[in-house]
Amino acid sequence: MSLGDEVRRAIDGKWRHVREQSREQLSKLDLLYDPSLTLDEARARVLEQMRALVPTGIPAAGFRTEHGGLGDPGMAVTGIEMLAQFDLSLMVKAGVQWGLFGGAIENLGTARHHERYIRPLIDLDLLGCFAMTETGHGSDVQSLETTATYDPSTGEFVIHSPTESARKDYIGGAAAHARVAAVFARLITRGEDHGVHCFLVPIRNENADDLPGVTTSDCGYKGGLGGVDNGRIMFDRVRIPRENLLNRYGSVDEEGVYTSPIESRNARFFTMIGTLVRGRVSVGGAARAAAEVALSIAVRYGLERRQFEGLPGEETALLDYRVHQRRLLPLLAEAYALRFAQNQLVARMHRLQTESDPDPLAQRELESRAAGLKALQTEFATRAIQECREACGGAGYMADNRLTVLKGDSDVFTTFEGDNVVLLQLVAKELLTAYAKDVTGLDPVGMVRFAASTVADTVKERTAAAQLIQRLIDARPGDGDHDLLDRGTQLNLFEEREQHVIETAARRLRRAGEDKAEAFAVFNAAQDHVIKIGRVHIDRIVLEAFTAGIARCEDEEAADLLRDVCSLYALTIIERDKAWFMEHNRISDDRAKAVTREVNALLDTLRPHALTLVEGLGVPAESLGATMLR
Amino acid sequence: MSLGDEVRRAIDGKWRHVREQSREQLSKLDLLYDPSLTLDEARARVLEQMRALVPTGIPAAGFRTEHGGLGDPGMAVTGIEMLAQFDLSLMVKAGVQWGLFGGAIENLGTARHHERYIRPLIDLDLLGCFAMTETGHGSDVQSLETTATYDPSTGEFVIHSPTESARKDYIGGAAAHARVAAVFARLITRGEDHGVHCFLVPIRNENADDLPGVTTSDCGYKGGLGGVDNGRIMFDRVRIPRENLLNRYGSVDEEGVYTSPIESRNARFFTMIGTLVRGRVSVGGAARAAAEVALSIAVRYGLERRQFEGLPGEETALLDYRVHQRRLLPLLAEAYALRFAQNQLVARMHRLQTESDPDPLAQRELESRAAGLKALQTEFATRAIQECREACGGAGYMADNRLTVLKGDSDVFTTFEGDNVVLLQLVAKELLTAYAKDVTGLDPVGMVRFAASTVADTVKERTAAAQLIQRLIDARPGDGDHDLLDRGTQLNLFEEREQHVIETAARRLRRAGEDKAEAFAVFNAAQDHVIKIGRVHIDRIVLEAFTAGIARCEDEEAADLLRDVCSLYALTIIERDKAWFMEHNRISDDRAKAVTREVNALLDTLRPHALTLVEGLGVPAESLGATMLR
Repeated sequence: MSLGDEVRRAIDGKWRHVREQSREQLSKLDLLYDPSLTLDEARARVLEQMRALVPTGIPAAGFRTEHGGLGDPGMAVTGIEMLAQFDLSLMVKAGVQWGLFGGAIENLGTARHHERYIRPLIDLDLLGCFAMTETGHGSDVQSLETTATYDPSTGEFVIHSPTESARKDYIGGAAAHARVAAVFARLITRGEDHGVHCFLVPIRNENADDLPGVTTSDCGYKGGLGGVDNGRIMFDRVRIPRENLLNRYGSVDEEGVYTSPIESRNARFFTMIGTLVRGRVSVGGAARAAAEVALSIAVRYGLERRQFEGLPGEETALLDYRVHQRRLLPLLAEAYALRFAQNQLVARMHRLQTESDPDPLAQRELESRAAGLKALQTEFATRAIQECREACGGAGYMADNRLTVLKGDSDVFTTFEGDNVVLLQLVAKELLTAYAKDVTGLDPVGMVRFAASTVADTVKERTAAAQLIQRLIDARPGDGDHDLLDRGTQLNLFEEREQHVIETAARRLRRAGEDKAEAFAVFNAAQDHVIKIGRVHIDRIVLEAFTAGIARCEDEEAADLLRDVCSLYALTIIERDKAWFMEHNRISDDRAKAVTREVNALLDTLRPHALTLVEGLGVPAESLGATMLR
Repeated sequence: MSLGDEVRRAIDGKWRHVREQSREQLSKLDLLYDPSLTLDEARARVLEQMRALVPTGIPAAGFRTEHGGLGDPGMAVTGIEMLAQFDLSLMVKAGVQWGLFGGAIENLGTARHHERYIRPLIDLDLLGCFAMTETGHGSDVQSLETTATYDPSTGEFVIHSPTESARKDYIGGAAAHARVAAVFARLITRGEDHGVHCFLVPIRNENADDLPGVTTSDCGYKGGLGGVDNGRIMFDRVRIPRENLLNRYGSVDEEGVYTSPIESRNARFFTMIGTLVRGRVSVGGAARAAAEVALSIAVRYGLERRQFEGLPGEETALLDYRVHQRRLLPLLAEAYALRFAQNQLVARMHRLQTESDPDPLAQRELESRAAGLKALQTEFATRAIQECREACGGAGYMADNRLTVLKGDSDVFTTFEGDNVVLLQLVAKELLTAYAKDVTGLDPVGMVRFAASTVADTVKERTAAAQLIQRLIDARPGDGDHDLLDRGTQLNLFEEREQHVIETAARRLRRAGEDKAEAFAVFNAAQDHVIKIGRVHIDRIVLEAFTAGIARCEDEEAADLLRDVCSLYALTIIERDKAWFMEHNRISDDRAKAVTREVNALLDTLRPHALTLVEGLGVPAESLGATMLR
């Protein structure tokens, strides 16, 4: 095996067989986006492509074997992620059908739903959509306005959009293809509002006409994702049978009596939402995978394209310029780091979702980590793809070189499945309140009130390969003359930053009294500080995952290369936040200059391995597809 | 007048009458991009829109009165910039026809060209394109491969593309509409290559068919600018009359004898390129203008959209959240700052281009400043429009809310009219070599060799309102406890940073000896440092222009508001580069934390004026056009 193959093996993780299989199968399917198609044509083409995916097993992977699936959640999210390397419209559409719509039925439904719907939805005999977001309510799902009122006289729920802002919006599949919607609506029975639940509501007949009381419309052109038919839905007192409530966490009997295994309405809501964690895991991974394609294209172009005379008599490859290296190689290192973190996240998710009795705290930690890694990976993708486009100059702006398509398609990933700002706040809240039982959701006042005094302890818990990490930190050179290339030093810097940011934020928040308005003001004044918690926490998780991943790499040459990549990642993060490290006396003014020097030295070290590193990402030639590459 | 009107007056600058006229006239023309059109339809529509512009006087503005123009270069670039607020395809297409193609004829041609071509090209009776870039040669124009060989036997030039990489590429207008191309090619006569000159080459006949020997092709879909027909041109020994050489800076007589008023081939080339400076001025301004539209949309949305309960019982406007303010208000301040700098640049350009005998050093300074402001404004636009899209969540991703269209269209602005990295390097080179006579172009080795010892002096020369600036700096409080809100302190920090960055770079570069390979290595190791020169130099120019602009503002209330905006701009730049200021002991670790505190305090101060500040930008309602706004 070549060094590139060894590296690929190391970073492909536990589901490497799924990655390899996907690379082979998807390369044969002609999936790349064609910008010359009309919206209707592009949508029809993606639907057709989905049918070609059914035999690959990816659609069935996420469902339990007793429902006709393969019982392999790790395969499911890895398979969806791999689609992102070919076409993000296909990834999103597949994610909506099998992940969100299918996932809602699998996780919120009960036997009667599983028996009736799972097999048809895997095989695309039933096309669904996931109708959560409303025009007036994106991030704040608990405030959804759509109502589902039980009518005991007929044994039906009445689904209704009471206001303009209650309109379901941006729903993938709602504009054209979906026949049934998984609708999130407030369950009201016997005059009482039991909060948001999920209902299966048929929206179109066989001829694709809206059913009575349903009004769909088309979101039309977007910044990308032309193959996804996003739409809106209004409900005018639409009646559905009582059985269409996905009733795992809340049931209504014929008389309209509501029962639930979870007493607290708040806890119930977040349990339901928590079962849908797979969406965030997929979206984060897919965004990073798209960025890997962009980096593979831009680095290869940087190696081929020559410009200006540098060494006497020869034009210099773009990637031989320091500034070009600075643009691309740190991003490449970040892609590697995030890949390891994603592999670890998927493994945890798989374990928890296949255990018979998963630990609730571990489940919340998983949700928090999925939220944080979704935010950081999608933010990374936005930044990386943009940089790749610019690094390829005019050629990068031509659609047939793929970068602009990747850019447009991936742009909404920072927004959907949870806006990144809101997600980082969620991560912070869990850390600040030490996963306190009563603090779920995003109420800033609750965050202020529960800011626990034990936060420091929560930082170190439950990390991967915790012993290895601790050993490296303990073995680091003294602080006075610490070596920036020493992994223990890097890990220690990340950890100390996290602890300090959490502790000082907790102190600021605790100043607030009981008054709600004051609590909000205190929270808001500290909001940028709070968000930083989420960011630095995930940074540490990522560096630890990278460290653990290298320890598992069996090929010594590959491990050596990965160690340099890991240092470039760590120092890139430190350089980006250098002012913080200096302000808080973690790095002296002198050492600060050394950070930049060491980054540049690592660029020199890694430059000869640039091609190996993009080979390691394993993006198939068919997915590169850029005409500017030879 | 409302405060918003006063602010608008202050930032509209000397050509405010052109801005006001454009706002009124363009609002009536239905110019916004329609993503449902096919490429052909979009291109045809933009061409039609151009015809509607002819009566506005903008097309004629840039040409001398004796050629049938209005002799008002300031009006020309301001008018082109205003198009950017409506549709960037139209702005680019207009810029190509009247700015680049027309500008080449006006500035590189002589009477015989002016008489024959200027009036028809203003009126669109002659459609042209500007064929400089080749597939193999983007930034390095001196290496163009297309040849124009003089044949004395027929008195013709033979235009030829000798290789694949000599193909003219990305040329706006070449795919469909242009009848004539201004082709940059190496002039060869009597066996001697005299370097790159510009030739008028007919490429299509009346039926839009390629003329014999000309092969055009279509670049097809791009990341945006769907209304611009970018294409490629190959020449197979195409013959044109000798008179088609634009011969202001180089002539060939019937026998093939070459003469030029400028002896040095290098100086001649850069003089020719220098006359085309208007393109860079326009592109920088247009990018910022597009960002102003995006900011107007996103800030208005942030004021209307409410989310989560903050104060008891009410949902909070997005823009009341600290993080949302942090996303948008510093960008708004940056837009203001860059507007003032652009106004100043346009005024200088206008002065130089209407003087009978402009100072050559002033001309080079203008080119350098145009290059730097092009880089910073286009980089700003990319960043700002992206942030605006994300700050508007899912709604921001819908094409009819304009942000994604602005994003896609403006994305190539960092690349065309000079790649930003190359342009910042050019700015740095001029400063490092103190505008040394023999150092033009981008040869890194030359940069190393000429790195002058007098660089520090070049920094302060020729700034606007230099006395005012110096007075403010002299009056600043002592360094020990300097007040970050004091303008003199801010100006001093910007100036000291620039001097230090230039001096240390010069020291690094001077270490290189005479060996070419070594010189390149030394240059390359310092390339990120060199590029930083360009950035910090322009940062200072911008802050000084803002300061001078406020001094000219006659309304006290508006001036007060602008002072806060200016401080937010200055502290935003300082915060972004905080690590540098700390590393170099310009800001103590303690003061560093104060930077962040002061930025947040300014956000609180400016939040109530957010609407006034977007009104000040003066983006007409017709240009906002976002359906999500009420």
